[in-house]
Amino acid sequence: MLTLDFHPAGRHFLHIPGPSPVPDRILRAISHPTIDHRGPEFGALGLQVLDGLKHVFRTQHPVVIYPASGTGAWEAALVNTLGPGDAVLMYETGHFASLWKRLAERLGLRPEFLGLPGIDGWRRGVDATMIEDRLHADRERRIRAVCVVHNETSTGATSDIAAVRRAIDREGHPALLMVDTISGLASAEYRHDEWGVDVTVAGSQKGLMLPPGISFNAVSPRALEAAKTATLPRAYWDWADILPMNRNGYWPYTPNTNLLYGLHEALDMLMHEGLDHVLARHQRLAAACRSAVRGWGLEIQCVDPAAYSPVLTGVMMPEGVDADVVRALIYDHFDLSLGTGLGKVKGRMFRIGHLGDCNDLMLMAALCGCEMGLRMAGVNLQGSGVEQALHHLSSHPLESARTA
Amino acid sequence: MLTLDFHPAGRHFLHIPGPSPVPDRILRAISHPTIDHRGPEFGALGLQVLDGLKHVFRTQHPVVIYPASGTGAWEAALVNTLGPGDAVLMYETGHFASLWKRLAERLGLRPEFLGLPGIDGWRRGVDATMIEDRLHADRERRIRAVCVVHNETSTGATSDIAAVRRAIDREGHPALLMVDTISGLASAEYRHDEWGVDVTVAGSQKGLMLPPGISFNAVSPRALEAAKTATLPRAYWDWADILPMNRNGYWPYTPNTNLLYGLHEALDMLMHEGLDHVLARHQRLAAACRSAVRGWGLEIQCVDPAAYSPVLTGVMMPEGVDADVVRALIYDHFDLSLGTGLGKVKGRMFRIGHLGDCNDLMLMAALCGCEMGLRMAGVNLQGSGVEQALHHLSSHPLESARTA
Amino acid sequence: MLTLDFHPAGRHFLHIPGPSPVPDRILRAISHPTIDHRGPEFGALGLQVLDGLKHVFRTQHPVVIYPASGTGAWEAALVNTLGPGDAVLMYETGHFASLWKRLAERLGLRPEFLGLPGIDGWRRGVDATMIEDRLHADRERRIRAVCVVHNETSTGATSDIAAVRRAIDREGHPALLMVDTISGLASAEYRHDEWGVDVTVAGSQKGLMLPPGISFNAVSPRALEAAKTATLPRAYWDWADILPMNRNGYWPYTPNTNLLYGLHEALDMLMHEGLDHVLARHQRLAAACRSAVRGWGLEIQCVDPAAYSPVLTGVMMPEGVDADVVRALIYDHFDLSLGTGLGKVKGRMFRIGHLGDCNDLMLMAALCGCEMGLRMAGVNLQGSGVEQALHHLSSHPLESARTA
Amino acid sequence: MLTLDFHPAGRHFLHIPGPSPVPDRILRAISHPTIDHRGPEFGALGLQVLDGLKHVFRTQHPVVIYPASGTGAWEAALVNTLGPGDAVLMYETGHFASLWKRLAERLGLRPEFLGLPGIDGWRRGVDATMIEDRLHADRERRIRAVCVVHNETSTGATSDIAAVRRAIDREGHPALLMVDTISGLASAEYRHDEWGVDVTVAGSQKGLMLPPGISFNAVSPRALEAAKTATLPRAYWDWADILPMNRNGYWPYTPNTNLLYGLHEALDMLMHEGLDHVLARHQRLAAACRSAVRGWGLEIQCVDPAAYSPVLTGVMMPEGVDADVVRALIYDHFDLSLGTGLGKVKGRMFRIGHLGDCNDLMLMAALCGCEMGLRMAGVNLQGSGVEQALHHLSSHPLESARTA
Repeated sequence: MLTLDFHPAGRHFLHIPGPSPVPDRILRAISHPTIDHRGPEFGALGLQVLDGLKHVFRTQHPVVIYPASGTGAWEAALVNTLGPGDAVLMYETGHFASLWKRLAERLGLRPEFLGLPGIDGWRRGVDATMIEDRLHADRERRIRAVCVVHNETSTGATSDIAAVRRAIDREGHPALLMVDTISGLASAEYRHDEWGVDVTVAGSQKGLMLPPGISFNAVSPRALEAAKTATLPRAYWDWADILPMNRNGYWPYTPNTNLLYGLHEALDMLMHEGLDHVLARHQRLAAACRSAVRGWGLEIQCVDPAAYSPVLTGVMMPEGVDADVVRALIYDHFDLSLGTGLGKVKGRMFRIGHLGDCNDLMLMAALCGCEMGLRMAGVNLQGSGVEQALHHLSSHPLESARTA
Repeated sequence: MLTLDFHPAGRHFLHIPGPSPVPDRILRAISHPTIDHRGPEFGALGLQVLDGLKHVFRTQHPVVIYPASGTGAWEAALVNTLGPGDAVLMYETGHFASLWKRLAERLGLRPEFLGLPGIDGWRRGVDATMIEDRLHADRERRIRAVCVVHNETSTGATSDIAAVRRAIDREGHPALLMVDTISGLASAEYRHDEWGVDVTVAGSQKGLMLPPGISFNAVSPRALEAAKTATLPRAYWDWADILPMNRNGYWPYTPNTNLLYGLHEALDMLMHEGLDHVLARHQRLAAACRSAVRGWGLEIQCVDPAAYSPVLTGVMMPEGVDADVVRALIYDHFDLSLGTGLGKVKGRMFRIGHLGDCNDLMLMAALCGCEMGLRMAGVNLQGSGVEQALHHLSSHPLESARTA
Repeated sequence: MLTLDFHPAGRHFLHIPGPSPVPDRILRAISHPTIDHRGPEFGALGLQVLDGLKHVFRTQHPVVIYPASGTGAWEAALVNTLGPGDAVLMYETGHFASLWKRLAERLGLRPEFLGLPGIDGWRRGVDATMIEDRLHADRERRIRAVCVVHNETSTGATSDIAAVRRAIDREGHPALLMVDTISGLASAEYRHDEWGVDVTVAGSQKGLMLPPGISFNAVSPRALEAAKTATLPRAYWDWADILPMNRNGYWPYTPNTNLLYGLHEALDMLMHEGLDHVLARHQRLAAACRSAVRGWGLEIQCVDPAAYSPVLTGVMMPEGVDADVVRALIYDHFDLSLGTGLGKVKGRMFRIGHLGDCNDLMLMAALCGCEMGLRMAGVNLQGSGVEQALHHLSSHPLESARTA
Repeated sequence: MLTLDFHPAGRHFLHIPGPSPVPDRILRAISHPTIDHRGPEFGALGLQVLDGLKHVFRTQHPVVIYPASGTGAWEAALVNTLGPGDAVLMYETGHFASLWKRLAERLGLRPEFLGLPGIDGWRRGVDATMIEDRLHADRERRIRAVCVVHNETSTGATSDIAAVRRAIDREGHPALLMVDTISGLASAEYRHDEWGVDVTVAGSQKGLMLPPGISFNAVSPRALEAAKTATLPRAYWDWADILPMNRNGYWPYTPNTNLLYGLHEALDMLMHEGLDHVLARHQRLAAACRSAVRGWGLEIQCVDPAAYSPVLTGVMMPEGVDADVVRALIYDHFDLSLGTGLGKVKGRMFRIGHLGDCNDLMLMAALCGCEMGLRMAGVNLQGSGVEQALHHLSSHPLESARTA
């Protein structure tokens, strides 16, 4: 069989926008022996991770952990709160918003998709006024939920969730607010309670620095209320089975023990660094990355500076350049993984992830790989993006990386 | 925060009927760095594990891998093949059969439950004639599926799936046959194709020796055909999304990368030992365990020798003894985890797991812990079960454990 | 090349008297990335392990750590304190005492070997009166050092070091007292300062639960004084180079970084369990092991109950039985490693290690393997040793293994 | 106690010239359970690593493995072949050559030190004509050994060992040739047999990519012959004890089991990449690093292009700049460890390691850290070294890093 030790000499550089590089600490944590998920130590572990998650989501309310990928948590959010044929207002910020909409359709909901046409909507965040206008028009209050993506992993645009909340509130509309922050949590600022989100969907393999395999629903009291009458069939995803057992740190079915070990370690790391520091670190790295893109004379996919993502940066290729050819060359020569263009921007851009357990020199390594690869692919660059990023980082020093 | 290094001096003995003890090799495998789930090495890995699984399920047809616990794979089997209100024939072999039935109800199906009353049905396998009779009575062929549990983890009884198949065939009934072998796969003999199973549900944390977190549907051509017209809403679980991408070793959403590393290692271990040898090892250990229970003068929960499970053995307590008190004492004094009695047999029995990466001395350690604990708890034993098990093992030697 | 994953199904049982089973925690600790041995974090680590070792040796004075096996630490003790041709009084307690004497000869010392003839001396500890008599006869005080083995790994006899100290003191003899407690440290009681030991030699792979690769000299002020005038050539072993740098947590040459990580973890485990509890655990397991040997009707190699080792038990075979044939059979059938008979007792006995990270069920597993193997080899046993050991352990319960 | 998880967010960059970054594969290998060092699997492992080492040293003759740091292997080379008071010709190439000379003195040898005065000798390799002249003057053939350092870790200069051999041969001088390639092995070309080296000294923590803790003597037939009459006292280091046991894959004392697991993995990695490819990779990275130093307008410590080291590059600081202040700043801000200036060049230079498991982006990360740190420290740079290195690497592409 194939060896699991895939890579050539030296370290692989994983700069897709998730899974993000899993720190050694977490890899060691998930290699602890699996224990009885009904024993006393497991219950203690369960309580700790359930409690720690609240800090990360900035909520006082429960967070549900699923042994599932983020797609499962999308489904969970919908089936726990809605009924067949319910109208849902969704917003096309990019590929993942589109996938969520498709999933809603397959579950028998009737999603309506707002957004700008073509790829324009894929280059910025949510326009809350469009949502407000649409809710305003919904005189019969048929729309049961507003679903938006906080950080669009396919584009590198972050939406203003508080603004969406205000739009709903200004209309006094009863729709639930559901937000996907799968790639945003613990990398971009996110405030479940303060922003009045009803269901937050998140995943493990991004800012939480874990391997993929668990995902989350943070749930407001209103969402719990809605769940009581929601009629979509559900079992695996049902909050009502999970929450009572969670009170003692257990689950109704076998949880993903070893990823929970990793989650415990990740929460410890985030708390130790300090969530505010984590977010500031992401902003600083993202700014350095954008200065590199500008240094190359290339376009940042996100055209709205207010929506620049701290998680990833989309890099548009000049006309005639196939971004996937560039990516393959970079992968082949420099053992650097970048994100591909998805859906409407397939082949037109690549994505640089700078999320999770990332630091200055990891980012610089990635930018060096990009710069060499772009030149080797014959892309006409205006200058050295690496130089710009070096300048940005050294002129915006952290107090000390060592005390981070 | 809590340290993850829970246990006191020396090795913990995990003898619940799953999660089974995860071998060091697999723990190291899952601690490989997470890679790009869309990159070329991942595709190669995906193809290998998808192919290797076929050998374990003994099928030529596809096996679907879910980032989910076994409960999710139960749900997947049903939603991919059935419609709202469909009649399903299920069989009460124990707690897990009951949970599957409850899940079916919550998905909007109409399960009918066969089986013996009280705990009688919890002490043996499926009676195929009851199924045959019921199908015979189903003149309108309303029953869309027959669902049985192959190895009841709550009781230690293994059912004769081939006999169920024959019962269906004798009636010429079109119902799909769905089998839960979550705790049976790779420990008890199982033949998806030969036995004509349409959907086999399995999990990672038992005979596959992995941590929990992924689960499986092995799918027959008839099941795939049924899926085309099945009307229960589904998205996450939908075979139709997964199978086309699996052809290149990929998945439509982020798979559980690190558990797939572990699966790769597990398949390598199983192939290297040889699946027949693995199954024979389980049978031999189970027989030794039962000889210990008899040596103690206690009752084996399963009353039908033909249904004795090679995976676990249920041990009934004498009247007046609370099995959970015994279990707690054993856990406390000997750092040995045993399975609790579930549902109808709560407090009346405990379960000894001898599955997965188990060998003679691991079993003997567990039996020693049981024997000491039973005595310390004041349970009146007829003799030394340990002595009986020692006798069984040494008089039934493997050719060589070293060449296993 | 050969796979590193040597063993067949299930866990290997390592019951040689060292290397002892390395706990998972320590294996994970040694798999931390290697760091700069001259950086600030390393210095902090160095100070911590150097300080923690003092508690284990029960000394206020320095403990030197060598990147070397225990044999190296034997050599270090001698070359730091003695000169060519110096007379050294050694005592034949078994194979390792003999090896130390041979090493002394090769370094140009003149060791004199006390002890009983034949294998009689290999079945008990040091007779301090023989040492006292010999020192008394040394009117010219030519003997520069008395060297004894605290716990003879080849026999399972522990010597009374305090008695040796008293013997020296009664004579007012200036000889240094050097003690090998390679297999005793952290398993058998040991008190460097209180017993007036000048150089204690120890290793990593026994009670400290580490892999082999580092070893120790604990050094009294008198030994340091002797080192100033000692004339054997030395460089690698020289305390004078190491101790000044140790003051800041560093070493003059590259230390064994990853084993120091393991040492840090081991010290944490020992402190957490409590050294007294660790020693009591060893005594209890050793007593259970001996009760098994008696139950089989076999002879314990050590004939003096006062000298019974808490670390290992030597089991004499009846006439005509080749112990190594029995060991090989046990290894082959039950994946259990036992210690071979060494030197004078080659083929006449085997050794059961019950040291380091050992607990009740690990010992019982080993005893079960021995009992089955002895029977399979046709050794005539008087009864079930396993039963005796079970009885011993359950009638001498720890308060709780869980709180150990 | 201190956590072992020292570092702040993201990956630490270890670019000292050893210990080099230990690949994950090797860290996992050394975390395999410790086994019986006298059992059959261990013997098989021993034979494999002893055989594999021959390929790396390019010798047909034995390689001795010590559980010791490189300093121990220095001592071993001398005590196995020489007698008290023997004259030894050594050559001052830098700090480590000086340490080896000091060690020889302490063992009672009479080393004579050739080389250029001041730091001039620390900026180039061995001048073989100086050795030839000195041997020529040694009419009485009193010089018993010529000792040189192949790759001076303190300076980044590699000496021409074949030229030294020719110098000895031209004189027909019987002195043994002993070479320290502790930091050169498996990074710089080295040919034990072809270059007529009698004893090669090497270590684990450089090109072999292991943690520190084991070291080596490769031994020619002439060296073995010399060992028969050599009179320095020795025991731990004695080849005569080790070599006979090595024939079956065992050692006379407990070897460093877990580092041998790592060695097995390292040999597998080197063979898989191909030793020639490994060496070419090092040369390419070193050339890129030097182009960066030139781009900064700083001086490379090694002034002789023929002696440029593929392992590390010494970077001289301009007058008035304290190299250790720069290093500390870089460490503090960018979590990058560089080598300090040692001995005569303390504070005047720092060292960039690019050895072992290093690749393009790891080197670029280090160079980015250096460039930012140099600027932040106020060092006047002539230009961007990073840009020069990027240019070098992209204009000298490997065929494919992926197939390395």
